[in-house]
Amino acid sequence: MDIIKRGVSEIIPEEELVEKLEKSIKENKPLNIKLGCDPTRPDLHLGHSVVLRKLAQFQQLGHTAILIIGDFTGMIGDPSGRNSSRPPLSFEEARENGKTYFEQASKILDKERTKIVYNSEWLSKMSFADVIKLASKYTIARMLERDDFTKRYKNGIPISIHEILYPLAQAMDSVAIQSDVELGGTDQKFNLLVGRDIQREFGLSPQVIITMPLLVGTDGVEKMSKSYDNYIGINEPPKEIYGKTLSIPDELIYTYFELATDIPNEELKKIREQLSNPDVNPRDLKRALARKLVSMYHSEEAAYEAEREFDNIFVKKGLPDEIPEYKFDNDIKEIEILDLIVKVGFAPSRSEARRLVIQGGVTLDGEKISDIKQIIKLEKPMILKVGKRNFIKLIHD
Amino acid sequence: MDIIKRGVSEIIPEEELVEKLEKSIKENKPLNIKLGCDPTRPDLHLGHSVVLRKLAQFQQLGHTAILIIGDFTGMIGDPSGRNSSRPPLSFEEARENGKTYFEQASKILDKERTKIVYNSEWLSKMSFADVIKLASKYTIARMLERDDFTKRYKNGIPISIHEILYPLAQAMDSVAIQSDVELGGTDQKFNLLVGRDIQREFGLSPQVIITMPLLVGTDGVEKMSKSYDNYIGINEPPKEIYGKTLSIPDELIYTYFELATDIPNEELKKIREQLSNPDVNPRDLKRALARKLVSMYHSEEAAYEAEREFDNIFVKKGLPDEIPEYKFDNDIKEIEILDLIVKVGFAPSRSEARRLVIQGGVTLDGEKISDIKQIIKLEKPMILKVGKRNFIKLIHD
Repeated sequence: MDIIKRGVSEIIPEEELVEKLEKSIKENKPLNIKLGCDPTRPDLHLGHSVVLRKLAQFQQLGHTAILIIGDFTGMIGDPSGRNSSRPPLSFEEARENGKTYFEQASKILDKERTKIVYNSEWLSKMSFADVIKLASKYTIARMLERDDFTKRYKNGIPISIHEILYPLAQAMDSVAIQSDVELGGTDQKFNLLVGRDIQREFGLSPQVIITMPLLVGTDGVEKMSKSYDNYIGINEPPKEIYGKTLSIPDELIYTYFELATDIPNEELKKIREQLSNPDVNPRDLKRALARKLVSMYHSEEAAYEAEREFDNIFVKKGLPDEIPEYKFDNDIKEIEILDLIVKVGFAPSRSEARRLVIQGGVTLDGEKISDIKQIIKLEKPMILKVGKRNFIKLIHD
Repeated sequence: MDIIKRGVSEIIPEEELVEKLEKSIKENKPLNIKLGCDPTRPDLHLGHSVVLRKLAQFQQLGHTAILIIGDFTGMIGDPSGRNSSRPPLSFEEARENGKTYFEQASKILDKERTKIVYNSEWLSKMSFADVIKLASKYTIARMLERDDFTKRYKNGIPISIHEILYPLAQAMDSVAIQSDVELGGTDQKFNLLVGRDIQREFGLSPQVIITMPLLVGTDGVEKMSKSYDNYIGINEPPKEIYGKTLSIPDELIYTYFELATDIPNEELKKIREQLSNPDVNPRDLKRALARKLVSMYHSEEAAYEAEREFDNIFVKKGLPDEIPEYKFDNDIKEIEILDLIVKVGFAPSRSEARRLVIQGGVTLDGEKISDIKQIIKLEKPMILKVGKRNFIKLIHD
């Protein structure tokens, strides 16, 4: 239970989890641990790793992880058309994203003890009559108790009826796979509880729900998410993971160690002590965290390599070991600074490039560029630097 | 429009109805007039006749009546189990009730211009994905605007989610048959409007809705309904229709003439005048109404016959022409009054029989029975009368 309870936000109800675990040991029958995955967002980051690592801990105790790829709803998209970030996926895309998800998750999970299932397998077979029977098992009032629904309903922001069918669909997943435990972020608590209720209505032993805190992103403000661009992807190269980790505010060091790494609880305790010790520089702990994270998703070697390179660039204000090159045709003799930044791919548009120059983040061979109309003569190889970590060597063919 | 507007509660929107009628005449294409029918209640009474007669008026103008038998929901019943009066129907029962409904409705409608369809034909083919798409076209807030939902939601009385799927299912009926006009009682206004909205979402020209007032039952209090036992069934024998009509309060005479008969508007006007004339006895108008109703559902002859018989019993305090007989075995010599009433079928239980005796509605050969323990000696043929119209002759075999 010490392992299971680490970092957890809530276990509902805890005594049932104890019972289930005891029964599992007695009957030598692993529990089904459910995790729902959104196939429209197949890139995993440390935020996802929090629940995935909890799932891995259950695997280490001998239980079965079941990843539910929500391809059914993924294939429908948002039919009201209000959520344009959720275009419908084709059957193939949903499967493809499911595989990508699984591959990334395999960095954390034990492949052997992981089942991957697609919920279209049962949900697409349900008829209108089945949906009515399912919907009869839950009331509008209880559904509107969900935090976001309550707020939207009170503020007169429309809730389409299909939105309240989704928690029921997710609950059917719990019925279909007969989950014993479902994991999710604290924002999923309500949906997980619906699963528990609906399982009971179908005569199954209701699942225990375990919610994990939402990891705050590198900005220290919002929850980690691709849309806030405050994420550390578990598939990112070592230097990205390393550099992004060093950019988090000091207040997050402990939480990241707790939720995103598997260092033992005693070490965790020591870190807490060190963080409150004025003689210890938090920067050193952050560097240890960054190395730890790179080690987890790449290797210890890569971690030290990333640290060395980082020190070269930022600490010694030097340049990275390897700088990519951009070759200009020999007949191009000069170029406007904004066009240059767009051409090498450091900005998607001239207006974005303009912003970067104005912010003072653009240098050429170490000299800051401040004139947005500056013409760059391409007479000799030069190093263009945009932002903190984008370097490129400009050369002629 | 004069015919169409008679007795109507609302036409929404009236100008669209005019357009549709004009277009229908111009293109010589009849309109589809929809009426939804509940196959769990196949016995039609005057309450149903109000909309059916409006439908018949559209037929007389050349349009097509489409009766939708709601067998889809009928076959599901109330899956929450709270409404025990709605047990699920089998496919066969639903068809059978549909036929019964149609046969009774044929007393009012023109069979040739009536289509009968079962909504399971399209609704049972819908998948969960189809339901989600349909549900995305309507919001929770708008659904909760429905009067009864608003009240229940405010008072904390549970509304199951499947209940808000039913108006959407009915709306799909309007999409499936491409109705131009939908008729219903005022209590159906909301559902009819959902049909209008959903048709628009499916790119169809939205139906005009016409609501008819709910006919008040013979008690003068509640809407006419089998469950309140205040109904006049259109399939009842002449003397029942006649007698029940005479039992309505005077205030309902005009409304019944307006909504339940097709006497011309000028006659209707005269009736209103007569009702406000102190020299006219409303009883005479009520007798005319009763004759009219018997004529509509039986024949003019039957109407006069019913009136004559009624006069015999009630007006002249005589007995009806024909009294059924109940034969006792010769060895039964006496019986308690309560057992007697139950035995001949005038009360379902002794306690009900007791109530009838106490209320003073039980006589034997014209003598009132007031002792609930009275023993009746079956020595000679006797006439038992219970309530106003139940007579039976007690004889020995």
